[in-house]
Amino acid sequence: MTVHYLEDLEPGLRYRTGSRTLELAEIQAFAREFDPQPFHLDPEAAKHTLFGELVASGWHTMATTMRLIVDSDVQLGWGFLGAGVENIDWPNPVRPGDTLTAENEVIEVKPSRSKPDRGLARIRTTTTNQRGEPVLVVTAKVIVPRRQPA
Amino acid sequence: MTVHYLEDLEPGLRYRTGSRTLELAEIQAFAREFDPQPFHLDPEAAKHTLFGELVASGWHTMATTMRLIVDSDVQLGWGFLGAGVENIDWPNPVRPGDTLTAENEVIEVKPSRSKPDRGLARIRTTTTNQRGEPVLVVTAKVIVPRRQPA
Repeated sequence: MTVHYLEDLEPGLRYRTGSRTLELAEIQAFAREFDPQPFHLDPEAAKHTLFGELVASGWHTMATTMRLIVDSDVQLGWGFLGAGVENIDWPNPVRPGDTLTAENEVIEVKPSRSKPDRGLARIRTTTTNQRGEPVLVVTAKVIVPRRQPA
Repeated sequence: MTVHYLEDLEPGLRYRTGSRTLELAEIQAFAREFDPQPFHLDPEAAKHTLFGELVASGWHTMATTMRLIVDSDVQLGWGFLGAGVENIDWPNPVRPGDTLTAENEVIEVKPSRSKPDRGLARIRTTTTNQRGEPVLVVTAKVIVPRRQPA
């Protein structure tokens, strides 16, 4: 495992996470608790919705992406501490049995003006399925400590 | 319950959801599955992190907000079908025992140019705790059917 500080990050730096498969029962369990809509719960009812089939909640895809990031070999000094999110897109649905992997790319690195011990990194994460199709793209602002305060 | 179509939405329309309390055990269970970082899992270890105490994962706050929206009295024709998210901020942390409520405001309504049966609504949701402090602000683009195709 590598711990990264602000000084270690630069635009263009990329790293991949491990993988996780979402099975039907997990998709339904998440939906029952957080997003109980027919297209996430019931394969039959889902046929009559805009998706035409059962798909995972976009928030389940997002939460799974977070887990992949937290488990990855590259760690940030204070953990993955989101100060906010700029954008989330779900270009393709996640279906039962899909295996997700995430790739992170540092977009921008900005030392804090007021706090000499830290800065912000903008990191874009693209989660893909086993066919390499993107299922989620999220750009997060993450708080990263400096190794040596300015 | 009221079902809304694109024709029923206009900028400035607001509606509130019900409430949900997040207990310590739920916060830890979510974190164990999706965001296993010390500041979401262990009250003692959390004291030595940037938060200084155990707080809910921002994705738990987001997923709980989604549940409040799905359970609310105001429903959209095809459900709450997110085409994407423009922004998420977490202005204050959620602590064990906090009770969350969400308020939704329609920001913009745009009929689709290519698909006469639908349009997009931009909806900003602000989730507050029992003291009225905002804990999450999210702006989502939602696909909404027209009652009468254009």
